[in-house]
Amino acid sequence: MQKTNPGRFFEDYELGMVIDHAVPRTVSGGERALYHALYPMRHALYSSDEFARDCGLPAGPLDDLAAFHIVFGKTVPDVSLNAVANLGYAEGRWLKPVWPGDTLRASSEVIGLKQNSNGRTGVVYVHSKGFNQNDECVMEYKRWVMLRKRDNDAPAPETVLPDLKPVLAPSDLVIPEGLDFSGYDFTLAGEPHRLGDYEIGEKIDHVDGVTIEEAEHMMATRLWQNTSKVHFDVTARPDQRLIYGGHVISMARALSFNGLANAQMIVGLNGGAHANPCLAGSTVKAWSEVLDKAETNAPGVGAIRLRLVATKGGSPFELKGADGKYLPDVLLDLDYWALMPV
Amino acid sequence: MQKTNPGRFFEDYELGMVIDHAVPRTVSGGERALYHALYPMRHALYSSDEFARDCGLPAGPLDDLAAFHIVFGKTVPDVSLNAVANLGYAEGRWLKPVWPGDTLRASSEVIGLKQNSNGRTGVVYVHSKGFNQNDECVMEYKRWVMLRKRDNDAPAPETVLPDLKPVLAPSDLVIPEGLDFSGYDFTLAGEPHRLGDYEIGEKIDHVDGVTIEEAEHMMATRLWQNTSKVHFDVTARPDQRLIYGGHVISMARALSFNGLANAQMIVGLNGGAHANPCLAGSTVKAWSEVLDKAETNAPGVGAIRLRLVATKGGSPFELKGADGKYLPDVLLDLDYWALMPV
Amino acid sequence: MQKTNPGRFFEDYELGMVIDHAVPRTVSGGERALYHALYPMRHALYSSDEFARDCGLPAGPLDDLAAFHIVFGKTVPDVSLNAVANLGYAEGRWLKPVWPGDTLRASSEVIGLKQNSNGRTGVVYVHSKGFNQNDECVMEYKRWVMLRKRDNDAPAPETVLPDLKPVLAPSDLVIPEGLDFSGYDFTLAGEPHRLGDYEIGEKIDHVDGVTIEEAEHMMATRLWQNTSKVHFDVTARPDQRLIYGGHVISMARALSFNGLANAQMIVGLNGGAHANPCLAGSTVKAWSEVLDKAETNAPGVGAIRLRLVATKGGSPFELKGADGKYLPDVLLDLDYWALMPV
Repeated sequence: MQKTNPGRFFEDYELGMVIDHAVPRTVSGGERALYHALYPMRHALYSSDEFARDCGLPAGPLDDLAAFHIVFGKTVPDVSLNAVANLGYAEGRWLKPVWPGDTLRASSEVIGLKQNSNGRTGVVYVHSKGFNQNDECVMEYKRWVMLRKRDNDAPAPETVLPDLKPVLAPSDLVIPEGLDFSGYDFTLAGEPHRLGDYEIGEKIDHVDGVTIEEAEHMMATRLWQNTSKVHFDVTARPDQRLIYGGHVISMARALSFNGLANAQMIVGLNGGAHANPCLAGSTVKAWSEVLDKAETNAPGVGAIRLRLVATKGGSPFELKGADGKYLPDVLLDLDYWALMPV
Repeated sequence: MQKTNPGRFFEDYELGMVIDHAVPRTVSGGERALYHALYPMRHALYSSDEFARDCGLPAGPLDDLAAFHIVFGKTVPDVSLNAVANLGYAEGRWLKPVWPGDTLRASSEVIGLKQNSNGRTGVVYVHSKGFNQNDECVMEYKRWVMLRKRDNDAPAPETVLPDLKPVLAPSDLVIPEGLDFSGYDFTLAGEPHRLGDYEIGEKIDHVDGVTIEEAEHMMATRLWQNTSKVHFDVTARPDQRLIYGGHVISMARALSFNGLANAQMIVGLNGGAHANPCLAGSTVKAWSEVLDKAETNAPGVGAIRLRLVATKGGSPFELKGADGKYLPDVLLDLDYWALMPV
Repeated sequence: MQKTNPGRFFEDYELGMVIDHAVPRTVSGGERALYHALYPMRHALYSSDEFARDCGLPAGPLDDLAAFHIVFGKTVPDVSLNAVANLGYAEGRWLKPVWPGDTLRASSEVIGLKQNSNGRTGVVYVHSKGFNQNDECVMEYKRWVMLRKRDNDAPAPETVLPDLKPVLAPSDLVIPEGLDFSGYDFTLAGEPHRLGDYEIGEKIDHVDGVTIEEAEHMMATRLWQNTSKVHFDVTARPDQRLIYGGHVISMARALSFNGLANAQMIVGLNGGAHANPCLAGSTVKAWSEVLDKAETNAPGVGAIRLRLVATKGGSPFELKGADGKYLPDVLLDLDYWALMPV
């Protein structure tokens, strides 16, 4: 009997199937410290327990993207080990903060299937959820990947495409219990800009850049127990290790502190594209565009919808060419909702 | 008076001498997080406090190899700073799990001495033990190293060779208090294979590989407070820094999850050879061979004896050439006992 | 309105101005573990909670230099983002240990101003303080940097130079509450040398070296939330990333264990010069010179004043050329007070 995990192929998925992913993970102050060592994170709510308490939370939570990476990492062996491409994300929501001491596990439900016309590949849509030790869902997202078929002669499943929201409505966003920005300390947070100071359509060049090293992206990706071999094994690809897309997301988000220091908590992921592969030696920079703003019911708390673009060169604010395709220096185009003092 | 530690030479050891090693070390969730960042660790018992509790333990312990590295690191300044070669290990036993908050210290007793016929070097055998803050022995092992003499004219000691077991018997293994695999969750653990599914003689290619970077092995080796300069100082050797052999052990053990996810706790180290030096840039892969199986008295808990081989190339399952010597791509040949649900 | 931080220029400072720095930071066992992974730290008081308790402290504190780096990092966006040069330190004092769970913030008061004769730059002197969550000052230091003017036509401020002590007197040093070295365990600490064993003028070559990697110094510098782009962005300088001077300080201090294992707690920083820039690939070594010794009122606790020199080559004990300038291989010349058993 084969003991190792060969990964799943397109015909291994059925609509409605629920996969419980392996290897639950307990987080501590160690994960928080490593997140600060790997990314230039400065958002005060995640850096300081005292600042978080002054905002109505019991302590500083684990970074929202770290929670995402842990949940995502658990899905890899069951969803994307054999993926030809990671096609997209939608309807990502953070439902509960993750605290040091929490243990996370994950499961995914198959919500869509479509065999490609070539008969050799297909697209699988999953709804993935992360749970804490109390079986509370801490975050969820939908994701679709292209997978090879094991047997090209296997019959095509009925095509079912999920109905995905292009953008989460403000009413879809869940505000962490107790969050209160009415006494927000802008000096300690690092910038004076509140939601009212941002205009829809405004673009911000975050200025700073970070040149990425192999050791760093591998440590990050392992920390999330993501086992995809292209990130670790230089002999598995013709050229260089491919950097986990989530490493670029976290790097760009951290860089966005400079101009968006008060976009504190990420509560919604509307969509995202890894426009081009990132390799070690690239210098990652970032810019953002304000896409929308909204009120919430929590005291002093507003929501800001942002496009976050990571690049490895080129000029800020350039995204796509005349052909509608991403420019070669664009690494990431992410669309998310964050909470900001009004 | 010379203030720095010159290390010990062969004639500095006497049979029965006990050396208390310096620099006790308290571990926390930080060491656990770093272990997960440095190695692709996925064994559920070490990743999740909840999984560990469901197996009868109070929490997820520090990885057994991390405990070994800490104890080993403490012995380096007193045992192997001037070692010409690290010749072997035997009778390694893990006696108590190490928990975040524990403080470890170590001591070694000289149990054997043999001057080499060249008169310039000799072999020292030590029995090293690690203790926690309650003076409980958490692990022990025997090790022998070749050391230079300071003074070639110093008289040879009486040759005493310790009586070392080639393999620990199942009855030598200590099962952690409370361990119970009768309700073991194979889904959360990541693989369905139980002890009965493995056959003696079975070989498993763990498939995945990791290309090693200088920054990673140095961070790991420093974390264990191992001060051997060949690991850190590129000017101390003709070519490249030599990677601590324990880094290769941990990397190979982590890779072995793929096929041996349920070989949870390491309780015995029968022997091990660092067959060839490992340098940064090498892509480490691993394969295992089932050497033996045994029952234990703990509910649902069996023991599996494994050969773990790390390579930097070549085909899996190749170990030695026609001359009986390790092939040049073999890095490690380790023989250990782990606990697995029956 | 510009959202990103352009940094301050010389004319943005006024005498007596107090700047509250952003982004408070909670530390945990994670920061402690990372400090041990990044530097070959072995001082027992910081490595072991048990050893620290035997010395009268409630637990092992965060390394004193880690506390310094955190406070320093907070000042960077307000003080040195546009610095042409970091000119010096004086009167650094550690007033309270920092414990896991503490949250640090920082503020700086402008205590001196002097426009340079070229009319384009000036020197700003600040008195920076770090506070814990109880508003207790945990450390303080004075520092001066050269800054560009935004507008060369801006009028020069009145020149005010602070009165800085060239060396802290023993009576200026603050001994941590409860510290007691009367039962100090020299075996566990790693060396037998007490204060009486060192002579003023004695020089110690710490022997060991560490070759520095890009990934390591960037992780360290990010951990302290230091945002100075020259440390991270290879495109921001003509050649290579410039390593944060504090990384060299911590590396040299850790290497000094070999010969100064009992110089446990740093309580005073008399001055320091980053003599030459450090780049990745350099092999850092260190030597020390005993500059002074003193008694304290705490039981068994003495103070030793040390020069700590980091080099990237050359012979130990060489510091300056015939021209009085630092030799090109000298990286750091630091003057500090540490506590040592008498």
